[in-house]
Amino acid sequence: MRGNGTRMAAAPQYFNSSTKERHRNRKGAELWDIRWGLLCSHPADYTPVCTTELGRMAKLAPEFKKRNVKIIALSIDSVQDHHGWTKDINAYIGESSVQNLPFPIIADEKRELAVQLGMLDPSERNKEGLPLTARAVFVIGPDKTLKLSILYPATTGRNFDEILRVIDSLQLTACKKVATPVDWKAGEDCMVLPNISEEDVTKLFPKGIHIKALPSSKKYLRFTPQP
Amino acid sequence: MRGNGTRMAAAPQYFNSSTKERHRNRKGAELWDIRWGLLCSHPADYTPVCTTELGRMAKLAPEFKKRNVKIIALSIDSVQDHHGWTKDINAYIGESSVQNLPFPIIADEKRELAVQLGMLDPSERNKEGLPLTARAVFVIGPDKTLKLSILYPATTGRNFDEILRVIDSLQLTACKKVATPVDWKAGEDCMVLPNISEEDVTKLFPKGIHIKALPSSKKYLRFTPQP
Repeated sequence: MRGNGTRMAAAPQYFNSSTKERHRNRKGAELWDIRWGLLCSHPADYTPVCTTELGRMAKLAPEFKKRNVKIIALSIDSVQDHHGWTKDINAYIGESSVQNLPFPIIADEKRELAVQLGMLDPSERNKEGLPLTARAVFVIGPDKTLKLSILYPATTGRNFDEILRVIDSLQLTACKKVATPVDWKAGEDCMVLPNISEEDVTKLFPKGIHIKALPSSKKYLRFTPQP
Repeated sequence: MRGNGTRMAAAPQYFNSSTKERHRNRKGAELWDIRWGLLCSHPADYTPVCTTELGRMAKLAPEFKKRNVKIIALSIDSVQDHHGWTKDINAYIGESSVQNLPFPIIADEKRELAVQLGMLDPSERNKEGLPLTARAVFVIGPDKTLKLSILYPATTGRNFDEILRVIDSLQLTACKKVATPVDWKAGEDCMVLPNISEEDVTKLFPKGIHIKALPSSKKYLRFTPQP
């Protein structure tokens, strides 16, 4: 069973290791002052798609930092492989003089975290016949629960614009009484949550709302500019 | 555990019901002549984000048809609710005179499929305290195995451009010896699979390849125009 509950139970043990950093150097009183997490596993070091993915993650590090998201990669390769491969990744993104990546790569050689978090892909195996880590994406909220989970096929590189889009939605909806509609991007109109009474709407959404008239006469399609 | 294996075991029983349609009216000898599947669950009928999502699915039905993808929605609401809500969805997308959607919505009132496929979200419950279906996306290949799995948060509408992007990659890589790099879109350069020998490259990729020189001297970053 892959319901959210399983992941939520598994995630905190790893992410608690960053507890010390959680209250550091943040402005504002909203949820942004506590850290979010992005954990991405990849099948193997020194492989084509993974190199383009970790290169993009490195380039996007400032975007994740801006959103207070700690990013971490994971595979079953060794620390030595991670160090060697890091040079290739930096060369690929045109940063040959840089020695490190702006995020850690976990060397899960014994597959302990991969098993715990359900990241192994039974259909992708190494030369010894052992399963490789899947191309997984987990976004963890400051409450240490799983918010987004994606398992991409081994053939298909991830879309980091989509990951950032969902994080923007998660951070907005964590502190405002809205949800974001299909294909939403930061700055676009949002939807008022169904449990907000008509009386509270004016107070909560001073920019106003637009209610779409529907055959059922139910008033649940309430749009508002992004609060 | 949410590894691919679990889903793969669960998916075929439902998707086998479309066996009859699998060989119908398709041209070409590639994998497109067998059907793909997209199964999307949503928390509840008559709710804001779900309405925008199913409206977008209806608008995109020709895109899925073009890719030979059978699309299906699922929630724990009744058939009667699905019929009433369909009118709202069509009104929302400006198709008030249309009575149906171009895809079925499964009425999984007893939560049988939702439990079988791990689609219930323990943190989202109805008035009776029973768990609702999560905002899940499953893409199933013609071999009846799970290819892509996404669990979006209840607050965040899906991105159907991303779903189509992954389907394009899956259908391409199912019949060509390439993978697609991070953020790839249809028509952009692809990557030669690591298991293709240098000798086979010329034969398989007549448009040529570009090998990126790397500090490790390994030749795994091989780009080629989309075959």
